[in-house]
Amino acid sequence: MRSQYCGFLNAQHAGQQVSLCGWVNRRRDLGGVIFIDLRDREGMVQVICDPDLPELFELAYTLRNEFCIQITGEVRLRPASQINADMATGEVEVYASGLTILNKAAPLPLDFNHDNSEEQRLKYRYLDLRRPVMSERLKFRARVTSFVRNFMDSNGFLDVETPILTKATPEGARDYLVPSRTHKGQFFALPQSPQLFKQLLMMSGLDRYYQIVKCFRDEDLRADRQPEFTQIDIETSFMSAEQVMAVTEQMVQQLFLQQLEVDLGTFPQMTFHEAMRLYGSDKPDLRNPMQFVDIADLVKDVEFKVFSGPANDPKGRVVALKVPAAADKVSRKDIDNYTSFVGIYGAKGLAWMKVNDISAGSDGVQSPVAKFLTADIINSMLERTAAENGDMIFFGADSYKVVCEAMGALRLKLGEDLGLTVPGWKPLWVVDFPMFEENDDGSHTAVHHPFTSPLDTAAFMATPVAELDHTNLLSNAYDMVLNGTELGGGSVRIHSADVQAKVFKLLGISDEEAAEKFGFLLEALKFGAPPHAGLAFGLDRLVMLMTGATSIRDVMAFPKTATAACPLTDAPGEANPAQLAELSIQVIKKP
Amino acid sequence: MRSQYCGFLNAQHAGQQVSLCGWVNRRRDLGGVIFIDLRDREGMVQVICDPDLPELFELAYTLRNEFCIQITGEVRLRPASQINADMATGEVEVYASGLTILNKAAPLPLDFNHDNSEEQRLKYRYLDLRRPVMSERLKFRARVTSFVRNFMDSNGFLDVETPILTKATPEGARDYLVPSRTHKGQFFALPQSPQLFKQLLMMSGLDRYYQIVKCFRDEDLRADRQPEFTQIDIETSFMSAEQVMAVTEQMVQQLFLQQLEVDLGTFPQMTFHEAMRLYGSDKPDLRNPMQFVDIADLVKDVEFKVFSGPANDPKGRVVALKVPAAADKVSRKDIDNYTSFVGIYGAKGLAWMKVNDISAGSDGVQSPVAKFLTADIINSMLERTAAENGDMIFFGADSYKVVCEAMGALRLKLGEDLGLTVPGWKPLWVVDFPMFEENDDGSHTAVHHPFTSPLDTAAFMATPVAELDHTNLLSNAYDMVLNGTELGGGSVRIHSADVQAKVFKLLGISDEEAAEKFGFLLEALKFGAPPHAGLAFGLDRLVMLMTGATSIRDVMAFPKTATAACPLTDAPGEANPAQLAELSIQVIKKP
Repeated sequence: MRSQYCGFLNAQHAGQQVSLCGWVNRRRDLGGVIFIDLRDREGMVQVICDPDLPELFELAYTLRNEFCIQITGEVRLRPASQINADMATGEVEVYASGLTILNKAAPLPLDFNHDNSEEQRLKYRYLDLRRPVMSERLKFRARVTSFVRNFMDSNGFLDVETPILTKATPEGARDYLVPSRTHKGQFFALPQSPQLFKQLLMMSGLDRYYQIVKCFRDEDLRADRQPEFTQIDIETSFMSAEQVMAVTEQMVQQLFLQQLEVDLGTFPQMTFHEAMRLYGSDKPDLRNPMQFVDIADLVKDVEFKVFSGPANDPKGRVVALKVPAAADKVSRKDIDNYTSFVGIYGAKGLAWMKVNDISAGSDGVQSPVAKFLTADIINSMLERTAAENGDMIFFGADSYKVVCEAMGALRLKLGEDLGLTVPGWKPLWVVDFPMFEENDDGSHTAVHHPFTSPLDTAAFMATPVAELDHTNLLSNAYDMVLNGTELGGGSVRIHSADVQAKVFKLLGISDEEAAEKFGFLLEALKFGAPPHAGLAFGLDRLVMLMTGATSIRDVMAFPKTATAACPLTDAPGEANPAQLAELSIQVIKKP
Repeated sequence: MRSQYCGFLNAQHAGQQVSLCGWVNRRRDLGGVIFIDLRDREGMVQVICDPDLPELFELAYTLRNEFCIQITGEVRLRPASQINADMATGEVEVYASGLTILNKAAPLPLDFNHDNSEEQRLKYRYLDLRRPVMSERLKFRARVTSFVRNFMDSNGFLDVETPILTKATPEGARDYLVPSRTHKGQFFALPQSPQLFKQLLMMSGLDRYYQIVKCFRDEDLRADRQPEFTQIDIETSFMSAEQVMAVTEQMVQQLFLQQLEVDLGTFPQMTFHEAMRLYGSDKPDLRNPMQFVDIADLVKDVEFKVFSGPANDPKGRVVALKVPAAADKVSRKDIDNYTSFVGIYGAKGLAWMKVNDISAGSDGVQSPVAKFLTADIINSMLERTAAENGDMIFFGADSYKVVCEAMGALRLKLGEDLGLTVPGWKPLWVVDFPMFEENDDGSHTAVHHPFTSPLDTAAFMATPVAELDHTNLLSNAYDMVLNGTELGGGSVRIHSADVQAKVFKLLGISDEEAAEKFGFLLEALKFGAPPHAGLAFGLDRLVMLMTGATSIRDVMAFPKTATAACPLTDAPGEANPAQLAELSIQVIKKP
């Protein structure tokens, strides 16, 4: 029904007869002529309906916004004075000789010229997706997946599908359950990732696997979380962490180069420990130049308990965060706001210091805490932070965790508020993660997942369990971080049953529990499992970053609301009682 | 860790140092030398361990089948006498200078040299997939999906993901349900297809959509059914049925040409009515040359009620199926077996006739039913079926449905048993399906789905509902059939709210029910929905046919058993009671 897309017409088509299909973006009646902006997936073109063709003209007069129409006509060059440089097709217009209304449109429940509520946008998603900004995002997403697949295919990775109806997986988040009809009272779980299946595929000798695959987490939602999300899932045999990182780094480099004409360069590597030391985060945004400076040693002996307490606590931390040229820009009111802001992360206050005259040393600073500190200490602080006139220093003193989180968040906020964060792209690898993190009850959880290899397997195996210190053990895991967002994470996996059993022991997983949950994996390790490693990228986040969208909802065709509902289809909905009976389940009514 | 895949080594590599990783397929000790067949994803190569390297030799002596090892060594040309023409790498061998055991293997629970039970194969799927025949199928499948994606991408189709957690869909099979935690007592359904979402994407103006996507049906399983299966899902705007058929036919043609070097040629088209008339099936296997010949008019007036009953019943059918040169090959015992066989499909008997001497006309035949027929009738039958000496004719006389099913199945069986089915590939399109089929209770169901456009929409809309005859209405639907298997099916969709409402009315769907189930679709049709059409292929079946596998389970990495269980992961399993409580559901215990 169409000879060209509207958006592809240009001066080269002048004189050609074309047939176009699309939607009336706008109709204007000007000087006795009707102008139609006709829109399709690829863009917009101006169509002219001339009163010399009275039948067509009259029909054109009935057109309203979003009518779906077919136009036939001749492409003509616009007079020089009417060329629209803002429009890709702005050099031409189509002189209509035929017009068919394919479908009329009632007035739209969305206003394309103004913001609409998220609820309305999702309820009428098919209309929201007509907005070019939205359709461009879906097109961009399709180009990203296409690029990734071609890259993986040409590097010998096999696209293999893994099950969606499967067993509860060990990622730790809440599973979605699916009652089984044929095995009454039992349930499938939707996968949080295909982790164990991709490891099994390596044990099958498939060598290199990838899949762009839906994963599921029944978690309370935030802006960058959805009940179902998409992973670029990768696993390889006989490759080291460095090799996996190299090939996936190359993929992301080429993706940015091809799709955004951005050269990301070689990704620097930073250990987890270094990232926490300098940025208080395992996904530092390197566009922001500010770094933490540890000063616990300087304030160990001060009377001021706010500083000396954490400085003397092995689990405490005291840092200074110097903000260049901020002294004049940050008011008392701002400081109050920042104090509330760090409070969200558990900080009980926010000490600060403005550097008015560096040449005067401790006398040249303004700070509510200066009175608690000696001149020597203040001078050491100024020296260590390399402060200059007009700089401002914020202090964090609390538990290690609170300082990292609160001051890490403050660093990002100050970077944005004061324009210190430099536009552009700053990728890096964070490596050498701890294997375990301590829970509040003193038990331990795997930081990545329990199948992650220790960084030094030989030393790990050579040391008796009783002598191993959870807090010092590092894993062979790596995260790719871009502009403060974790794009992907992975690890070398355990391929030896002995190592796996020892890790389970350190996690306090009994032999029975291990056998019940992961028995098939432990058994699979007995039959010549190869060394293997892998990685998974969050596709939604990657596309969100690349398109500049602010929520992953904006790069999904049909996302859910924050309560995991779909206002368009009205899912979830009531179930048929007969079907529930067949599934041997019933809904518990609230009293 | 590897410089090459084992299977890629050939004479060109002679003299090169290589590093290989893989599994011990076999170890042989011959003439004081150890030979290892080393296997990886791409094939196998022979490795030689020489006693001149005693340390390596001793280690090699400990190797057992399926140990995972790394070999370094030199590629050498085999002496002419030892070249193995059956092996892709048969011209070379690798003279090992280094050997590392990466992982040992316990004796395997599967015997690679013999058949294993399906249960064992699925329980140890990661080992079953090491068998080259299985890994080749997964590799082939990956090549098919890669081809399809590239074809679709280069034809302007956008890969868009649709939700897995959604509302009950109207395909008619049983849905898998997923209880919602945030909306207590409500359920998501897993999609049986993304039908409505892809139609909504057309209403979004996406123009051309495709997705290779998991779909779900909670049905009792057969050899070619699985709870989750994969569809190549396609939808387009502004294209006619012919155009959709042309582009998808081209895709399948190119796929066969590229992957199997098979030229399928142009696909013939056959109406549903014609397919039923000639083959009693809407997915005829055209490799089988036999066709039905209708003879109701010949036997209308015979005394023999078995024939004359159905011949005079408007819902009956009487056909002859001539089997060339079968008279000598089909014994009385065979006939008994065929009679039992058609009984499975509801036929109450199986009349037959052997043509011994065609020149003698009705006197030259042998048939238990000859005595009920006049010479004229027998001669007419012989003439109409163009029978020759040695041919055999089977008769089917029953309801239309039973004749089609029983004689259709018999036609296929005879084709196989007597070698009449010609090897090769016979694609076709079946078109002009009926819109509705009648249920036993006299109500009607949509043959495709309720969103399928009538073939002649103008006539459909011009006729009042009361005057429309369900049985005569044709839909604009099309199926692609290959060798008797439905590869894919699709239709032009309804894009007008009026047409859709009228179809719902004919289906006996009340306005209320329509609003509740499909309200969002009916509403979406109001806002300038474009004409659109689409199609979906069953990827598993396509790959099964192309690889010559006999079950779709053999072209899936991790299929389920016939009771929808996974013996590998032991899914489904018990759910945590706390989680069920969170979901507000409980299991109903059987008394």
